Amino acid sequence: MRKFVLAIDSFKGSLTSTEAETAAREGILRIYPRAETLCIPIADGGEGMLDALSTLGGQEVHLRVQGPLNDKVEARYLITADRQTAYIEMASASGLTLVPENLRTPLQTTTRGTGELMRDALDRGCRRLVVGLGGSATNDGGMGMLSALGIRFLDRQGKELEGRGKDMTATVRIDTSLAHPALKTARCTAACDVRNPFYGTEGAACIFAPQKGATPDDVQLLDQGLQHLAQLYQQATGIDIATLPGAGAAGGLGGALAAFLHADLRPGISLLLEANGFQDKIKGADLIITGEGRADRQTLMGKVPAGVLHEAVRAGIPIALIAGQIANEEELHAAGFYHVCATTPQDMPLCVAMQKHTAQENIRQAMEQLLKNWNK
Amino acid sequence: MRKFVLAIDSFKGSLTSTEAETAAREGILRIYPRAETLCIPIADGGEGMLDALSTLGGQEVHLRVQGPLNDKVEARYLITADRQTAYIEMASASGLTLVPENLRTPLQTTTRGTGELMRDALDRGCRRLVVGLGGSATNDGGMGMLSALGIRFLDRQGKELEGRGKDMTATVRIDTSLAHPALKTARCTAACDVRNPFYGTEGAACIFAPQKGATPDDVQLLDQGLQHLAQLYQQATGIDIATLPGAGAAGGLGGALAAFLHADLRPGISLLLEANGFQDKIKGADLIITGEGRADRQTLMGKVPAGVLHEAVRAGIPIALIAGQIANEEELHAAGFYHVCATTPQDMPLCVAMQKHTAQENIRQAMEQLLKNWNK
Repeated sequence: MRKFVLAIDSFKGSLTSTEAETAAREGILRIYPRAETLCIPIADGGEGMLDALSTLGGQEVHLRVQGPLNDKVEARYLITADRQTAYIEMASASGLTLVPENLRTPLQTTTRGTGELMRDALDRGCRRLVVGLGGSATNDGGMGMLSALGIRFLDRQGKELEGRGKDMTATVRIDTSLAHPALKTARCTAACDVRNPFYGTEGAACIFAPQKGATPDDVQLLDQGLQHLAQLYQQATGIDIATLPGAGAAGGLGGALAAFLHADLRPGISLLLEANGFQDKIKGADLIITGEGRADRQTLMGKVPAGVLHEAVRAGIPIALIAGQIANEEELHAAGFYHVCATTPQDMPLCVAMQKHTAQENIRQAMEQLLKNWNK
Repeated sequence: MRKFVLAIDSFKGSLTSTEAETAAREGILRIYPRAETLCIPIADGGEGMLDALSTLGGQEVHLRVQGPLNDKVEARYLITADRQTAYIEMASASGLTLVPENLRTPLQTTTRGTGELMRDALDRGCRRLVVGLGGSATNDGGMGMLSALGIRFLDRQGKELEGRGKDMTATVRIDTSLAHPALKTARCTAACDVRNPFYGTEGAACIFAPQKGATPDDVQLLDQGLQHLAQLYQQATGIDIATLPGAGAAGGLGGALAAFLHADLRPGISLLLEANGFQDKIKGADLIITGEGRADRQTLMGKVPAGVLHEAVRAGIPIALIAGQIANEEELHAAGFYHVCATTPQDMPLCVAMQKHTAQENIRQAMEQLLKNWNK
């Protein structure tokens, strides 16, 4: 009996992850009617890490913390059943959706609430923190988060700053003497789906602050703040985050975690697959199928198929990539995809190919074709 | 994310195992659109154990052995990758399909070829034999098999008998002095889906010999032979197989394996699920769904849902049973099925319910209903 594992991202605009997998499964069954199939839907970005991890069991902790602005918000995070690991989504405490549209400005927002969740987890004995960095309302360089963990940011008058976007440029000294003692022993991993540096034209402020409500002037101020903070972080920790890929995630929260908690910045999909026991699930599989709406060299930069590829290679199981459209096919092959397959026929217009039923039938036929050519 | 495992037998006459599971999966996705689903098709009886086990890898051994009559046949069996276990199907060497219809008579057929496969496996160092007992052409009480392993059946003149159905009554002595030495250390398990005793009105000859070509007179002779053999087996081994459930499987081959190899007689589905690593596959599942076309108290006697139930209970995972028709519902509940669900609406005639598309839609709706009432 053949065993196939399907872990396909949504085909944005036409199919959910489950719909894409259902179509691929139907194509497989046309060739191997008695195959064993495992369909693992990929959580949409919107769903968040915590929902996807809810199968792990463990305890969901609810906590009132500082929101992105001045209001308190009810945030939550997850502690695993063995009490060792906390899964924290920064968006739960410091997310953009918590700020009404007319009040959005990253000069005023803070990641302090995220730091409060982390402190709570450390106080409960967790020594591994996994922090999801998507959906932030902030551009404070992680100041707020660090403040909540006892790291003090002092201005020219020696007064402690709150840790909002505007406070970055005002900082002259960082005092780590009162930092939470568990920071020394805790391991931190950040789920980070962008590779932007801390500051500069590709940095957090220039690329992401506008969508958080920053004006062009604000962006400039914020970018200066991040550049300034990077120097202070290096003085305080010896770690240079200026050009670290991912340091610019969540308005610089990625860089702060890397500098003060030695966080690994890893693609969210990799963390998710690891947490969900993907290696166990694929045991004995003959072929893994992954995919997304459009695949190109960006796919290899931490997107869903890249995470699945990594696990497949680790397990020594062949993996095929399907996508509505494919570019940079040779690079995808070279990266390790055994088979790379564009599901949309060459002469079909995109507006037709993206219709749900057409997209599904295209996937079915592509899988059929793929398996006919698959001699294992 | 919810995880569901589907291991549903075919709905005979309307749906294959895969088709039933596809419909059940679709019903699940109506309620939990992002559920993880693992569909494990159940091998149809016709396919045989070896095909179902082919995923295990290992080595397929082909061997020319004595067929059920006088011709040699090309038979095969499977040795696992660790070289410890041989999976042997008696039908491969001694099956009914190997005998032309006009030559079928269990007075003349022998299980010697099955014994030759077992001997070959022992000679290659296997110390665990798993023998599938379905589809036999024989009613020799396992004499032929035992002969091939060096156990001699002697008649009144001290002449060695061949081990065909007619030889049972002629045996006066069993000589085990030249038996294959590995019989002492080998462990044997027989996959056995009937619970008939060795002889008597429910025994091998009365129940199964007619479909193997025995006339009523033949049946009487064969039944006497089995009764006689049971006594000799007890004298030789100290083991009484007369009323052992399953001893009558494969024309008494089950009894011979139990007496001389201390074989466990177990339902084929249990062995199959064990060999295929079912316990691993169901890890973390929220619910297991099994089923078959018609479920009743017979279901609990080693049929597919009973095997799946056993594994679910071992793992502490709730299990639901679906079937086109259900009888003895309370007994099924009492056996451990969390939910027992007849998919066919009460007022629907069987001839309608058995149409493929109707059967599938009935399953979808039943799963929907089941999950709506499922508060976990």
